[in-house]
Amino acid sequence: MTNAIDIGADVLAAAGRARAAAAVLAVATRETKDAALYAMAGAIEANSAGILAANAEDVAAAASGSGESMLDRLRLTESRVAGMADGLRSVARLADPVGTLVRGSTLANGLELRQLRVPFGVVGVIYEGRPNVTADVAGLCLKSGNAALLRGSSSAAASNAAIVESLRAAVAGCGLPPDAVTLVPGAGREPTKHLMRARGLVDVLIPRGGAELIQTVVAESTVPVIETGVGNCHVYVDAGADPGMALAIVVNSKVSRPSVCNAAETLLVHRVIAPDFLPAALIALDEHGVTVHADERVRAYRPDLVTPATEADWATEYLSLDIAIKMVDSLEEAVEHIRRFGSGHTEAIVTDSQHAARRFTASVDAATIMVNASTRFTDGREFGFGAEIGISTQKLHARGPLGLPELTTSKYVVIGDGHVRV
Amino acid sequence: MTNAIDIGADVLAAAGRARAAAAVLAVATRETKDAALYAMAGAIEANSAGILAANAEDVAAAASGSGESMLDRLRLTESRVAGMADGLRSVARLADPVGTLVRGSTLANGLELRQLRVPFGVVGVIYEGRPNVTADVAGLCLKSGNAALLRGSSSAAASNAAIVESLRAAVAGCGLPPDAVTLVPGAGREPTKHLMRARGLVDVLIPRGGAELIQTVVAESTVPVIETGVGNCHVYVDAGADPGMALAIVVNSKVSRPSVCNAAETLLVHRVIAPDFLPAALIALDEHGVTVHADERVRAYRPDLVTPATEADWATEYLSLDIAIKMVDSLEEAVEHIRRFGSGHTEAIVTDSQHAARRFTASVDAATIMVNASTRFTDGREFGFGAEIGISTQKLHARGPLGLPELTTSKYVVIGDGHVRV
Repeated sequence: MTNAIDIGADVLAAAGRARAAAAVLAVATRETKDAALYAMAGAIEANSAGILAANAEDVAAAASGSGESMLDRLRLTESRVAGMADGLRSVARLADPVGTLVRGSTLANGLELRQLRVPFGVVGVIYEGRPNVTADVAGLCLKSGNAALLRGSSSAAASNAAIVESLRAAVAGCGLPPDAVTLVPGAGREPTKHLMRARGLVDVLIPRGGAELIQTVVAESTVPVIETGVGNCHVYVDAGADPGMALAIVVNSKVSRPSVCNAAETLLVHRVIAPDFLPAALIALDEHGVTVHADERVRAYRPDLVTPATEADWATEYLSLDIAIKMVDSLEEAVEHIRRFGSGHTEAIVTDSQHAARRFTASVDAATIMVNASTRFTDGREFGFGAEIGISTQKLHARGPLGLPELTTSKYVVIGDGHVRV
Repeated sequence: MTNAIDIGADVLAAAGRARAAAAVLAVATRETKDAALYAMAGAIEANSAGILAANAEDVAAAASGSGESMLDRLRLTESRVAGMADGLRSVARLADPVGTLVRGSTLANGLELRQLRVPFGVVGVIYEGRPNVTADVAGLCLKSGNAALLRGSSSAAASNAAIVESLRAAVAGCGLPPDAVTLVPGAGREPTKHLMRARGLVDVLIPRGGAELIQTVVAESTVPVIETGVGNCHVYVDAGADPGMALAIVVNSKVSRPSVCNAAETLLVHRVIAPDFLPAALIALDEHGVTVHADERVRAYRPDLVTPATEADWATEYLSLDIAIKMVDSLEEAVEHIRRFGSGHTEAIVTDSQHAARRFTASVDAATIMVNASTRFTDGREFGFGAEIGISTQKLHARGPLGLPELTTSKYVVIGDGHVRV
């Protein structure tokens, strides 16, 4: 228990240091913050060799027990390090959300009311795998005036430490507090638990990773959480779809990057379009190496290319070259299926019917509804936000790709001239 | 245990009915919703006698064990019932937030991106005392396209049931589902616990009431919570203040309605202004029946009018005719005191110095910063929002008075023409 208390005290002390740094960052000018971001980029490049050496340690330690895809996410290369630096510079070029006017008015009694964007304070981020997230998150938090309290994967501990050391030195060199970028100290799960309970010291917690991580944080955290990332995304091919367009969108949604949250997992096909669409779709998916899990009506088209689907398939986020396919008798049935199984991330309809598009976008409850476009477009960079810290699938605060404005809260400033309330 | 399971099932069933109603409300037009709001107002008036009779039962049951202020909050009168109806009509006149464009752009690749306001779905509200909250919340939720899942005080059970019965009949009469207004069934604390765990069925939970209620909901709820209401508000009288203006603002902030969250609880006085301000302020507060708890430097002015303050006084939200007063040597000391003890609700500065006002508004982290105005102005109606469902003191989603737009989330609608991601 002594050990647990020590770990708790260490985590709270780190959060307290981040909090003190946040008070300084909150009033830093864009000029100062951008200078720090360019310095951070320069430091990452200058310390590239050291970062790669630390990463080599992590990769060597993980090599025996990990699959190649995990090692690939963990591994840094010269070009990935350069990518981190470029990312920091591109964040410097983005507009500063802090101080933006959200709304303003002069009230009937002459009070001047302004609602301004202000930083949260301390943003905690719990993430897995890729060490470049460390630099991305630190940069986005600093630009939005927040201190970043980072909890990366233990498998990337040496890489993250090397990256953070470079970033902190650069921040300090620009006259900002180095605790603007703070790693949660300690190994194992205990420090993460203390981070999740640091209500009052940490203003918001963002988990980035698999469904299990996110569910744990949502269930255990007393710090307010922005839930990200689980995407059981559907493409609905309506009766009024162009079969060629539908095929291109389905293939792109599924195969262009199957491991990410905006990849499609289930295809819903209106029975009227099925004869014109399904045979070619099943062949194309097969040619791309996709395993199809489908209901009997779909399977009837090409039993040789289709595995029978079970109830579990509708609820599964495969994140792999698998897709579930179901035939539906109506747009309403598609909407109902999505209501039951969707995760509120991205839902697409392919149709040439204005009426169908309008009903689908109004009825489906998700962060993003795509009409005649691939689910893969749900992305901060694609949306023109310049960068993203994750994709929110919750309704509170932010929904969809989280850009810089979503890393802020607001403050009302009300100016009077001795006004009292009657 | 069987009983607890039954209660849980009943609560989840009620939440499920509210959820089904929410799907209909989400696509209801403003026309239909406003018609329902006017019908709700009419029904409240038409059933006034029944509502007052039910309320008389509640008041009689509570009479023996409750203080007069609690009974006053519980008691309905003809004019309070008329007030509920008026409130519903004024909500009908407010703009509909649903469908409002938050941002929009055409991306470089031709994709049309729109972020639109959409309802949360099911809004759970846990509240104490006043039964008129039932009608207020039901109206605000319906206007914003949300189903209201209401958990009022058990002391107001008969009143709330009578009000909800009237509202549901009116809603149904307008062709909307009556479950748009749903009471959480069952008595005691058990149903509230189930409500707090109904993640997935309830989209957001808003506790309205005392600090204890709010802390319980924040700690126990797995449903996302919007924290409201605790206000340990400060007025800082700067060296550059006009003493007369400062006096008027302090008195108004403290005594105009001491029991509400936007009343001032602590006064911070710069030592330079103290000789010109404190003697008159101590007399005025005394004349208004305010008990002053102050540090030694303040007490030196009028030991006869001042009780010595303890550490606990700085942290106390009195909600009564008490105020804590502390002398500070600088604006920075005032900011630091507020950082330590403030609840993030409303913080006021009285000063004629632009520089001081600018430093204070930039450094203090709260939902509302008042410059030369009473803390009592932090209020949805005063801010011109027409109505409010509470005042958020948290940073996630909404901060300050919660108007109709704060009862919505957003949805991205992206329209392409067969766009796929390269």
